[in-house]
Amino acid sequence: MAGFGFSIVATDVKARAGTIRTPRGEIRTPAFMPVGTAATVKAMLPESVRATGADILLGNTYHLMLRPGAERIDRLGGLHRFMNWDRPILTDSGGFQVMSLSGLRKLTERGVTFRSHIDGSRHELTPERSMEIQRLLGSDIAMCFDECPALPADRDRIAASMALSMRWAARSRDAFGDRPGHALFGIQQGGLDRDLRAQSAEALTAIGFDGYAVGGLAVGEGQQAMFDVLDFAPSMLPADRPRYLMGVGKPDDIVGAVARGIDMMDCVLPSRSGRTGQAFTPRGVVNIKNARHADDPRPLDETCDCPACQSYSRAYLHHVFRAQEMISGMLLTWHNLRYYQRLMEGMRTAIAAGTFAGWQDDFHATRALGDIEPL
Amino acid sequence: MAGFGFSIVATDVKARAGTIRTPRGEIRTPAFMPVGTAATVKAMLPESVRATGADILLGNTYHLMLRPGAERIDRLGGLHRFMNWDRPILTDSGGFQVMSLSGLRKLTERGVTFRSHIDGSRHELTPERSMEIQRLLGSDIAMCFDECPALPADRDRIAASMALSMRWAARSRDAFGDRPGHALFGIQQGGLDRDLRAQSAEALTAIGFDGYAVGGLAVGEGQQAMFDVLDFAPSMLPADRPRYLMGVGKPDDIVGAVARGIDMMDCVLPSRSGRTGQAFTPRGVVNIKNARHADDPRPLDETCDCPACQSYSRAYLHHVFRAQEMISGMLLTWHNLRYYQRLMEGMRTAIAAGTFAGWQDDFHATRALGDIEPL
Repeated sequence: MAGFGFSIVATDVKARAGTIRTPRGEIRTPAFMPVGTAATVKAMLPESVRATGADILLGNTYHLMLRPGAERIDRLGGLHRFMNWDRPILTDSGGFQVMSLSGLRKLTERGVTFRSHIDGSRHELTPERSMEIQRLLGSDIAMCFDECPALPADRDRIAASMALSMRWAARSRDAFGDRPGHALFGIQQGGLDRDLRAQSAEALTAIGFDGYAVGGLAVGEGQQAMFDVLDFAPSMLPADRPRYLMGVGKPDDIVGAVARGIDMMDCVLPSRSGRTGQAFTPRGVVNIKNARHADDPRPLDETCDCPACQSYSRAYLHHVFRAQEMISGMLLTWHNLRYYQRLMEGMRTAIAAGTFAGWQDDFHATRALGDIEPL
Repeated sequence: MAGFGFSIVATDVKARAGTIRTPRGEIRTPAFMPVGTAATVKAMLPESVRATGADILLGNTYHLMLRPGAERIDRLGGLHRFMNWDRPILTDSGGFQVMSLSGLRKLTERGVTFRSHIDGSRHELTPERSMEIQRLLGSDIAMCFDECPALPADRDRIAASMALSMRWAARSRDAFGDRPGHALFGIQQGGLDRDLRAQSAEALTAIGFDGYAVGGLAVGEGQQAMFDVLDFAPSMLPADRPRYLMGVGKPDDIVGAVARGIDMMDCVLPSRSGRTGQAFTPRGVVNIKNARHADDPRPLDETCDCPACQSYSRAYLHHVFRAQEMISGMLLTWHNLRYYQRLMEGMRTAIAAGTFAGWQDDFHATRALGDIEPL
């Protein structure tokens, strides 16, 4: 598709390093996408998100259609201008969050009707309306409208849901049309079942998309089950297109996914954890609320170049968390997003150098050390 | 005092423009000091506070002594390093906030015992302990420990309180000692009474301070009563030292105070208002929650150079306020602090040019216009 492209610059076993080109800028892969649900990455200014190294944000169709509304954002010049982020934005289809957040849903072949979790108002999402909303938002990478059953579910339920999602994928493709510089990704479903995953991949490839997501994971199945699926599912998808694992995850989930051929991920974990006082470091998660930090003059993570680590002590971060000051969420979110981007940078460099196996060993060995010794 | 000084560069009727020199940097006067109560200006990073034009912050002795504790901050290298602000800090004495925030107080000649509003623990503040805490914090400008009765109060109560504060001022001066590069300010009391104000000024001047605050105002007496006192009180204080009006105020309070010879002010209003969706503009206060902003593509204040006004629409600010996103408080606080600093810059320029009367006319005429017309 004109203006949108993907090139792989290095592979290391199954891991890939590459570049997605869009008219709004390049996305270095493997890429982690911070989540800007309601037209803001919580507790961050967009220039700070960019400073962490993010090339692309994720926006949530479900939240934005309800508030402030897709037509309103379109009138105001689109989501990029509205939220002051001029680089690429990927939007989800709204399907997953209708299922997880809204009340009183009704699912038919046509789509889903539901009530807003904000004000109870009635809304409908169909493949056609989801594509229209994502167009109104101005998203650079749109996602097919799909249905994702919660796991565990029986095979018939998963098969029927997958088949519906594939029919919706075809309708999404038709509704999206030809929009130079904008991409549409299909979403593979099929739960943990290899045959259903293969059928889904075949159906999506026959339709033809600019990229492919592995959907229906990170919904409670556990890391091992997810990795088991990722051992076979990505390779069913076209090798020359980006592969996106939706809603993942913890740092070790991300490393394991990249090792299995995933190119893109998103998760609220770094920002949400930042607001609740959990900080990611190479040596594991630090709970800044813990009293042992109260007098600690050392930085949260001495290897980190973020403002929280460069200019503040653990004692300060502990104090402002305890005092419920906004700067606590601001600094820890910045730190966590920077940690995630450093993780991606480390993997991209290692894949390019052909040293990804050793990098993974170091990653796990450093985590095994645990946090620094108390003073 | 070595390393600390004040020079007046221009006067216009009673208004003064000048510079306070400290080892940590110059303070341009008239100066507005943002309030960093608990070692943070709420919703702001310190580099952003500096970017608004602030030369000095105010820290609250009462809050910091209770959490994280003055001795702890000292062990961690002092308040500047703790909160990552290397420019001047003025600390209050704790006296006012003990009276307004703590529970179960007992006032004696020696000082005040009270219970923490945070955890109910028992504490004591005396002139000597207040000076010690302000030294442990590393404040550049310390304030005398004083007592301030709520208004209205009868003359005997105000006279007795003022006399106690003057005895405490002498003890504060003795306890502060000689600390090159650090300043101690006395605080004039006496309520609305001219004779008591004169007695207080005389007592303070006899002790000798690096600067003088007009205390005991902005405690419910109303703007006109405050201005009536400011018509005579500042001129009772030494003309060659900075004059500080504590806890003031709204923009028109500040302009009126500068017109009456005040050099320094502080207030939580711009930051607190920012968190509740109130934005200050030259044309008055804008309530961003109002539905009329929902589709408004215009900036909050087209004359403002802050990030909120340069990069976002009223529609966006309305949306993120309604969605209770942290960026709402972050952007509106930045805007309000920048508005206050622009106000001070405008007054300093006008005083230097000898055009302050005309500047005041413009200030009031612009406010009378009201907010921009709805779309």
